[in-house]
Amino acid sequence: ARSLTRDSIPRLQDHAPGQRQVLFAACELGVFDLLAEAPEPLGAAAVAARLGTSSHGTELLLDTCVSLKLLQVETKTGKALYQNTELSSTYLVRASPKCQGNMLRYLARTTYLCWGHLTQAVRDGRNQYLEAFGVPSDQLFSAIYRSEDERLQFMRGLQDVWSVSGRPVLGAFDLSPFPLICDVGGCSGALAKECTSLYPACRVAVFDTPEVVQTAEKHFSFPEAARISFCAGGLRRCSMHGVWPKSFLGSAKPEEVSRGHPGLRTPDLSICGH
Amino acid sequence: ARSLTRDSIPRLQDHAPGQRQVLFAACELGVFDLLAEAPEPLGAAAVAARLGTSSHGTELLLDTCVSLKLLQVETKTGKALYQNTELSSTYLVRASPKCQGNMLRYLARTTYLCWGHLTQAVRDGRNQYLEAFGVPSDQLFSAIYRSEDERLQFMRGLQDVWSVSGRPVLGAFDLSPFPLICDVGGCSGALAKECTSLYPACRVAVFDTPEVVQTAEKHFSFPEAARISFCAGGLRRCSMHGVWPKSFLGSAKPEEVSRGHPGLRTPDLSICGH
Repeated sequence: ARSLTRDSIPRLQDHAPGQRQVLFAACELGVFDLLAEAPEPLGAAAVAARLGTSSHGTELLLDTCVSLKLLQVETKTGKALYQNTELSSTYLVRASPKCQGNMLRYLARTTYLCWGHLTQAVRDGRNQYLEAFGVPSDQLFSAIYRSEDERLQFMRGLQDVWSVSGRPVLGAFDLSPFPLICDVGGCSGALAKECTSLYPACRVAVFDTPEVVQTAEKHFSFPEAARISFCAGGLRRCSMHGVWPKSFLGSAKPEEVSRGHPGLRTPDLSICGH
Repeated sequence: ARSLTRDSIPRLQDHAPGQRQVLFAACELGVFDLLAEAPEPLGAAAVAARLGTSSHGTELLLDTCVSLKLLQVETKTGKALYQNTELSSTYLVRASPKCQGNMLRYLARTTYLCWGHLTQAVRDGRNQYLEAFGVPSDQLFSAIYRSEDERLQFMRGLQDVWSVSGRPVLGAFDLSPFPLICDVGGCSGALAKECTSLYPACRVAVFDTPEVVQTAEKHFSFPEAARISFCAGGLRRCSMHGVWPKSFLGSAKPEEVSRGHPGLRTPDLSICGH
């Protein structure tokens, strides 16, 4: 074991959950929003006072954010003053169009708890929504969408993801030959928006469950509304074993999607948003 | 924001708790022990059968371990066969003297849950043992040592840490001029063992609470027993604000430690094991 030194140990300790929780906590407490709005860098005491958090805890949090390159610090007359980095300004400030705050909140509140049950998940061969949240999870998306609040939180999270990844994904292949595209399991319509923006000639039909469509229409705005339509479907959605869109695509043909919705002709292309 | 591309996003997603949980789960299920004992590399189905785990879940777990360099895989006649890497053989197999399994279990079961409450901890400025485990935590070590099982688990974890880090720490300075060393808050005596091994002429007095000393004497063996003695003390241990050994060292002088224990003369050096 000559090549293996104590330096290998940190590899085991990489990816500490604590580091990610620091990012989550700073987002949730509004650290990045406060620093974005402040006209100048702030000290830890000022941040704590405005957020109503513990002064010692805030100082530790800010310094850890610095070490994670989420904040930068400068010292003026002996006082540490914090401000956002380019990374946090772009992805962690609520006012930024690329803010990932909703997705991070989802990861912190839901995904983090599920990961805590991984050992049992490997034993059982099934997800642990029952153990983590008390909801049966034979139908994964029923568990994820277990309440209006949870549904909205998840949809906002996906909105964040597509705000950054939608354009590169949709631009990977030239989709301009397809004038009518169906996004199966299209959720909040975030990918549809990116699609109409990238391909000015196309129309997109977003197909999802009635509850999701209702939430999308209620909470999300669609400046391109004329080119994006929602289809609330129930197509075999109750037999959602495994990941929904996969089995959905496996069991549904584009013709079936349009058959249940006479107003919609067979799409030229069906994509799966997840 | 020209310098900031989509490649920056992964930085936000580094340190995914999931990656660490994969390590925890594989340890807890005994994957590395099984592969260490097997005479040859095993397929996922064989691992699942012997561990009594889900075959699909096991396959996913093993492949993720490969991506984290905790396992290596070779394909023979179309079948993937897994074996330990040097890293996992050294630090994750129970039979290895450097195995970190107890510490990892502690991190997975206790620390992981505490990190889940970080936002509230920054609001309150206090640890979250009450929220995570229902135990009051004004005295941190009372919370950590909340039951015999928890105490034992924590002590075994520290044992793991010192089995790797004890020698470099104790060897950083030459302690050979000190024939009697007192390890204040010396827990299981793991550091004392490393000390007597590194400095053959020294004796070590391990000072800790009566409960810890009792657990140490019951569950841990001391081949060098003649040179390691335990002192069960109550010295101001009830005023444990913050991290115990720090305040302990702050309030106690070595003379006081020995005063309460007439058999022990003033140590030549007091160290803090945590």
